[in-house]
Amino acid sequence: MINRTKIEEYLEKQRPEIDKIIEKYLPKKATKKWLDYTFGKSRYFYSQKAAQEVLIKPAQEFLSRGGKRWRPVLFLLITQAIGGNLKKIKDFLIIPELCHEGSIIIDDQEDDSELRRGKPCLHRIFGTDVAINAGNFFYFLPLITLIKNKKKFKPEVICRAYETYIQEMINIHLGQGTDIYWHKGKAKKIKEKEYLQMCAFKTGCLSRMAAKLAVVLSEKDNQLAEKVGQIAEAIGIAFQIQDDILDITLEGKERAKFGKSFGNDIKEGKRTLMVIHTLEKANQKDKKRLLEILDKHTDDLEERKEAIEIIKKYGSIEYARKVAREIIEKSWQEAEKLLPESKAKEKLEDCVNYLIKRRI
Amino acid sequence: MINRTKIEEYLEKQRPEIDKIIEKYLPKKATKKWLDYTFGKSRYFYSQKAAQEVLIKPAQEFLSRGGKRWRPVLFLLITQAIGGNLKKIKDFLIIPELCHEGSIIIDDQEDDSELRRGKPCLHRIFGTDVAINAGNFFYFLPLITLIKNKKKFKPEVICRAYETYIQEMINIHLGQGTDIYWHKGKAKKIKEKEYLQMCAFKTGCLSRMAAKLAVVLSEKDNQLAEKVGQIAEAIGIAFQIQDDILDITLEGKERAKFGKSFGNDIKEGKRTLMVIHTLEKANQKDKKRLLEILDKHTDDLEERKEAIEIIKKYGSIEYARKVAREIIEKSWQEAEKLLPESKAKEKLEDCVNYLIKRRI
Repeated sequence: MINRTKIEEYLEKQRPEIDKIIEKYLPKKATKKWLDYTFGKSRYFYSQKAAQEVLIKPAQEFLSRGGKRWRPVLFLLITQAIGGNLKKIKDFLIIPELCHEGSIIIDDQEDDSELRRGKPCLHRIFGTDVAINAGNFFYFLPLITLIKNKKKFKPEVICRAYETYIQEMINIHLGQGTDIYWHKGKAKKIKEKEYLQMCAFKTGCLSRMAAKLAVVLSEKDNQLAEKVGQIAEAIGIAFQIQDDILDITLEGKERAKFGKSFGNDIKEGKRTLMVIHTLEKANQKDKKRLLEILDKHTDDLEERKEAIEIIKKYGSIEYARKVAREIIEKSWQEAEKLLPESKAKEKLEDCVNYLIKRRI
Repeated sequence: MINRTKIEEYLEKQRPEIDKIIEKYLPKKATKKWLDYTFGKSRYFYSQKAAQEVLIKPAQEFLSRGGKRWRPVLFLLITQAIGGNLKKIKDFLIIPELCHEGSIIIDDQEDDSELRRGKPCLHRIFGTDVAINAGNFFYFLPLITLIKNKKKFKPEVICRAYETYIQEMINIHLGQGTDIYWHKGKAKKIKEKEYLQMCAFKTGCLSRMAAKLAVVLSEKDNQLAEKVGQIAEAIGIAFQIQDDILDITLEGKERAKFGKSFGNDIKEGKRTLMVIHTLEKANQKDKKRLLEILDKHTDDLEERKEAIEIIKKYGSIEYARKVAREIIEKSWQEAEKLLPESKAKEKLEDCVNYLIKRRI
């Protein structure tokens, strides 16, 4: 069995190094040097103050809240597990991480969520305009690593890296869009396969991106990138299912650590795997009531709890756990065949298990 | 003197061809074929309905409203003017166009604007979540042209194209961010040079991108790309100044065509070149009153008009016109030296003049 404390410690230990790399490209101060490096020499004159207040400040505030940084760790571990040159490519870990940070800033704005990592969502502190702009800035800024380090690679490699990024970013918007469409209550019936596809894009894209970039920048072949990407995608799917489970199960101290308000997904009307399973299994009365609560986007805690009780009644939490476990197990069998034995591989397995068994 | 009708007709004539290319990558229906082509084969199962409702429908509604499509025309004319292979590269015109469309969807959301092209802004029809997601989708979808057509080019060329796009997208967020910071009324004094830099990024980036992509994909050298990019950036700056002027001068029928509500920039508290000039020249009383109106983000039409009267009193509209004209003239002198005589060059000059003299 997995030792949760050990892997949590491991993630914690990687953090300063990861944050140091992020700071290299996104410092705490919008210095003239950083502006020239990042945006090129100005044609006229930069407003350093504006850059500080509207890009750096919200970005740093958000990053300082924490986050598990597991996507960059995935990038690092895969690089090691396939025998890549870690020193040469480690700066690129900021791509999946900053892109992820951007996507949750945007996601919170889209859903008008309340809390993220235990604090008010970014748009609630800095305003919609600043938050969207900062979130979208994160979609492009980390690719500066590809621009600045291109001479260390063949153009083919840099091309594949851009392509990997762009394709995942195209796909993530179908995933997110599908999720949005559903929680507006517009779809009559959602198939489990459609839900899993939505997760594969909404959440899987970013871990697939982290994994594929590790392979591509390690200059391994496309086939390996595809296979490793598929495994990472599965991890992302299982992570999302676990995230949905935590949303309706965590209470008390653990909830505070989780950093989102209780039953937030119920409020948003999200069609999670558990909801889909319940709608499949429930009697007419329960089904009707669950849909009613989901579609009214309720702030009422009692109603949220009522919905969760219906979900529990049909064993849907257990069902979702089972699906997540199966997806991970099947994918890990693939990884077993693909990756030679190594310490990095062991850590990777711990990490994978942690992500679906985590309680925060 | 420029014949406005002639160039408007020219833009109008290019439109069906441009829209046909857009439709190739963004069709009216989310067919299975389009889904597979754009997002790859599904791991599980796509929800075609969700893709239709949440991506295609808002995107098509927005595109159907019009827009001048001058960025793709800029791309086409520059390609011809530098002797590029138009047939080979014309699909890439969707990059600056869709990216621009995305940026105004996002901009409208950030400012919570009312009207765009004479209709309610996209987020007012489809909701914040759908609008942001569709706007951001436009930031990545058009790059599918680079993924799908890469074999026609050397990897170096495709790399430079990605790099051009990414750098401009990094810069545009500093431009937009600076604009946001200012219209929150947070800056004490804004220098004209800072304003022009903001425009160079906020508006200039997209025309620079269109121009540079034309040169890069025509496989001309970096120096030419830089120079042509600089000229296009200047066009963008002048276009923005003209846009600001129209916001506070157009009334009646022309206003309706302009498609935004009167004095919208006053409401937003925007620090335009005219505002900056007025704050520089005005007496204490006028200065104080102008800032007061700008900082209260007023819906009151009379107050908006009062602010505009103050701006007019100090000749700031004429001043802004002069600055725009000088920027364009200086840049066109560069273009004169750089580009050989051709029909495309003549059209380009007409187009440039039109953009700063336009009344809609």
